Amino acid sequence: MGKKIKDPGLGNASAASAERMMNPNGSFNILHLNKTRRFSEAYNFLVEISWWYFFLLTFVVGFVLNAIFALIYLLIGIETITASTGNLSEDFFNAFFFSAQTFTTLGYGAMSPEGMASGIVSSFEAFFGLVVFAFITGLIYGRFSKPRAAIRFSKHIVFREFADNMAIMFRIVNNRRSIMIYPKVTVTLSLTKQNEDGEYTNSFYNLKLERKSINYLPTTWTIVHEVDKESPLSVFTKEELIKQQGEFLIMISYYDESFNQEVHQMHSYTLEELRLNYKFQKAFYYNTDGKMVLDHKLFDNIEKLNNT
Amino acid sequence: MGKKIKDPGLGNASAASAERMMNPNGSFNILHLNKTRRFSEAYNFLVEISWWYFFLLTFVVGFVLNAIFALIYLLIGIETITASTGNLSEDFFNAFFFSAQTFTTLGYGAMSPEGMASGIVSSFEAFFGLVVFAFITGLIYGRFSKPRAAIRFSKHIVFREFADNMAIMFRIVNNRRSIMIYPKVTVTLSLTKQNEDGEYTNSFYNLKLERKSINYLPTTWTIVHEVDKESPLSVFTKEELIKQQGEFLIMISYYDESFNQEVHQMHSYTLEELRLNYKFQKAFYYNTDGKMVLDHKLFDNIEKLNNT
Amino acid sequence: MGKKIKDPGLGNASAASAERMMNPNGSFNILHLNKTRRFSEAYNFLVEISWWYFFLLTFVVGFVLNAIFALIYLLIGIETITASTGNLSEDFFNAFFFSAQTFTTLGYGAMSPEGMASGIVSSFEAFFGLVVFAFITGLIYGRFSKPRAAIRFSKHIVFREFADNMAIMFRIVNNRRSIMIYPKVTVTLSLTKQNEDGEYTNSFYNLKLERKSINYLPTTWTIVHEVDKESPLSVFTKEELIKQQGEFLIMISYYDESFNQEVHQMHSYTLEELRLNYKFQKAFYYNTDGKMVLDHKLFDNIEKLNNT
Amino acid sequence: MGKKIKDPGLGNASAASAERMMNPNGSFNILHLNKTRRFSEAYNFLVEISWWYFFLLTFVVGFVLNAIFALIYLLIGIETITASTGNLSEDFFNAFFFSAQTFTTLGYGAMSPEGMASGIVSSFEAFFGLVVFAFITGLIYGRFSKPRAAIRFSKHIVFREFADNMAIMFRIVNNRRSIMIYPKVTVTLSLTKQNEDGEYTNSFYNLKLERKSINYLPTTWTIVHEVDKESPLSVFTKEELIKQQGEFLIMISYYDESFNQEVHQMHSYTLEELRLNYKFQKAFYYNTDGKMVLDHKLFDNIEKLNNT
Repeated sequence: MGKKIKDPGLGNASAASAERMMNPNGSFNILHLNKTRRFSEAYNFLVEISWWYFFLLTFVVGFVLNAIFALIYLLIGIETITASTGNLSEDFFNAFFFSAQTFTTLGYGAMSPEGMASGIVSSFEAFFGLVVFAFITGLIYGRFSKPRAAIRFSKHIVFREFADNMAIMFRIVNNRRSIMIYPKVTVTLSLTKQNEDGEYTNSFYNLKLERKSINYLPTTWTIVHEVDKESPLSVFTKEELIKQQGEFLIMISYYDESFNQEVHQMHSYTLEELRLNYKFQKAFYYNTDGKMVLDHKLFDNIEKLNNT
Repeated sequence: MGKKIKDPGLGNASAASAERMMNPNGSFNILHLNKTRRFSEAYNFLVEISWWYFFLLTFVVGFVLNAIFALIYLLIGIETITASTGNLSEDFFNAFFFSAQTFTTLGYGAMSPEGMASGIVSSFEAFFGLVVFAFITGLIYGRFSKPRAAIRFSKHIVFREFADNMAIMFRIVNNRRSIMIYPKVTVTLSLTKQNEDGEYTNSFYNLKLERKSINYLPTTWTIVHEVDKESPLSVFTKEELIKQQGEFLIMISYYDESFNQEVHQMHSYTLEELRLNYKFQKAFYYNTDGKMVLDHKLFDNIEKLNNT
Repeated sequence: MGKKIKDPGLGNASAASAERMMNPNGSFNILHLNKTRRFSEAYNFLVEISWWYFFLLTFVVGFVLNAIFALIYLLIGIETITASTGNLSEDFFNAFFFSAQTFTTLGYGAMSPEGMASGIVSSFEAFFGLVVFAFITGLIYGRFSKPRAAIRFSKHIVFREFADNMAIMFRIVNNRRSIMIYPKVTVTLSLTKQNEDGEYTNSFYNLKLERKSINYLPTTWTIVHEVDKESPLSVFTKEELIKQQGEFLIMISYYDESFNQEVHQMHSYTLEELRLNYKFQKAFYYNTDGKMVLDHKLFDNIEKLNNT
Repeated sequence: MGKKIKDPGLGNASAASAERMMNPNGSFNILHLNKTRRFSEAYNFLVEISWWYFFLLTFVVGFVLNAIFALIYLLIGIETITASTGNLSEDFFNAFFFSAQTFTTLGYGAMSPEGMASGIVSSFEAFFGLVVFAFITGLIYGRFSKPRAAIRFSKHIVFREFADNMAIMFRIVNNRRSIMIYPKVTVTLSLTKQNEDGEYTNSFYNLKLERKSINYLPTTWTIVHEVDKESPLSVFTKEELIKQQGEFLIMISYYDESFNQEVHQMHSYTLEELRLNYKFQKAFYYNTDGKMVLDHKLFDNIEKLNNT
């Protein structure tokens, strides 16, 4: 059996009920207990949530901060801003509008502070509002400029005849129009077994690939592991293989042309997901003008092989 | 015939009418079908368009957003902002100016909201306006700081005598005043042929170069591939060569001193573009003060060789 | 005795009273004399201080700048802004509020400049205020985006039996939820000795480690130096070892997934800190759902070994 | 004579009157003719000028833009903003102040636009002003975050006895408090000679160094080239050497801890600058508390050697 390696950083211990180590989106399947929260993680959180969630959060936070300042103006006395209407909810709305006009440094002036207390609070609020918008500006740029790998992995991983052996194949496509430069791939197989003492342990193998890297990835790339005699999978029959508890841990690195940085993306397929005797449908072709066409709709398509 | 390599990521299939694989500007000549659009690509789009287009877009978007808010104020009732003129278009302009004063947080106050509806809309507009300018700030910085390779490739690629053989040469110049550190070049030749079955296939070759890298590039660098016995081009006569369907795919990487990053730039010349028996005119010289002068006007100049 | 190396950049000279070379937080223990201050270091300072200190500083600076402008308005004459109250401190507060409304570009208009002097100062102040907020925006983003390694080093370094020898072990954990990619570690031992002339000199050794790198670090990693015959520490008995004057200089590099950059972190343990015959308690386990759990509270825990 | 290399990117041609190739600050001594200016170079310019120049430029540009808008308001008619004073220069100042209040989105409202023309211009000006401040914000952050190598090169390069030979030495110090990680140095010697045809040509040599890299640079590092039999300088006597026309081209690369990036810095010494029989004074020592002290004032100090 092929190149067994030391654990790649995951430890060899396992458990009967152990779930997959890596989620399909490439994150590790680990629960953190008693972790101290750090402010810098708030930034990472705000940069990684979706745009809709980000805007919702921004407006909710803005609304709440304004409401708090509105309450402070009410406490100080609405008459230090504008004439009281004699109606608390109307006064609150006026205080809220004044607060919003101050927070955003709009300052129409139809309402304006009179006296020390509202003078101090409104000066502070304007300053505070600008700092909040400095934060929002930083976050928006942080969201924009965060380099994100944009590899789309095929939904399926297939197990099919290839040359004289069987082979395991999955494919990737560039999800952006930009060029991926020097993509490199490594596939680590983790196999879980029960030893004589009844303990579950993981073994790790670096799988040999037909090609480990290409120069650029403008279309699709099918990554192939041939199950030859060297392969750790050669000891199983096709039917046995799919029943093993195991996982393909994939890491792809490339230089992203739009972010001008080296980026990494991870993905995982389990052995259970292997589709026996399927092949991928070609996703690009030349049209009548001689232009190469890449059809993203075809990317996940697989076809049953005839010989089965 | 020389070092044939696996396809560098482009696939071996071709077609009779196949266009060049790479456009001269280094982008791949590929049509994307059924590609889902991603918000992050909007950023890349806005960062890569020209400055004039960017400003035009900014002002058009600003104008349209203002007009939308103006309409909302009209719907609410112009009298909640300022006295109606009794003329709809004049009222619209007043609403538009009020909207602009709110969106930019100018807030002169000559017009100011009265009542709930315009209070809410104007508070929201000011907040929204600041978020829009946070976006613009992020985009402007993103445009500034995007590392761009600034290599200028010679308009022509020449095919001339060199030592005892023929050689293919093109040259590059640093289009910035800053220093390019450790520029490295690779040239991949793609040759398209029809096989016995009438199918068109591409073969790829890494061309051996006189020098693959230099320490820094302050002036010009002529990249030379000598067509010796090892070269995949040695099987053709000069006249045959130019008629082949083929393409030089060039990638240059270097550390850019002004952006402090490794950058890449691609370029492509087709075999048809080869200029037989021409040489490049020298583009730099010492002036009488002993200073080296680099004349960018001379960069594209080629001269017919006498021996032909 | 094992692989002695040239000093890694620290020099071989030492002194009887020499303190540790590196502080536990990874900074070098060096006093700089007669160093010219550079403006760019102010940025580094403002980016590295804590958030609370940063905000405090921001508000204090904002307050002081406003107060300075308020004094200028008083000097020009409060009546060029608003009617004098006849009371200097009240006039100062009005000037201060006007200044704040100008600095933040709030501009209610209840107070507004009349005449040349206050017109010029307020125009300048508004411009200046916006530049200050541009600074704050830049600093906030700089603070956010500064890549920081987030390795937590174990409080203790242990010295225990391992295979047939003794071994020195410490461990690290990822203090973020994100993945550390390709962490690499080097441990340099510095040993201080007195030579025949009574001078103190340092010798440096690269320690051989059980593993120098792993693929990713989702949980903890125990770094092990076995004191075999090759080890520079093999010449000492256990008891002698702890009395030596020496220091482990550790550098860990990895690609941080949240900042998309290679980051470095240094740390130092002294020989005195070695805990004899202790082992680390395991900090992760599988819960009943089959999920791996990493308990950060257990990370620093060590246990006395039974055999002693 | 030692390892002659191909030109590192500078060409072999020279001239009788040729000046040094590289300025002491590391920039190449090249005049660019007919270079098209690019907008992206404006950014590089604005990022690299000094802070004082940058602020001066910012205020001058702000002033000029405001003045232009003031003239436009005068052309439209001052009465569309505020009552005319009947005095052109006073009206201009009022227009200027109104323009400043609009450009900075201050908007006191004491002056406010009436009618179409000034409504349109002021709406545009506020929008334009915000875009200008977005630029300034981007530039300020760009200036802050630009990674700058901060190596200080010794003023002198010395030529002194070392072991059994002579050696050439210069030294560097970290001009920041942060740590330089893995500094690497290369020294290329360029020697200019006149050949039989009277043409001046440059030969280039990679000089062998005592140490090419260290792990970290907390204090000073003296870089040593020993003039042994392998050295291209061994063919000259001490007195001849100093009369040669030649230049040491130095490149230092390291990972900067404060900017978290690999940075490069270049420097050049000419052969004429060699100081015969001098040595560098040590610049760091241990104080009585056992703390290492680095005295930047001693850094450039050299001492005459006794043996001469």
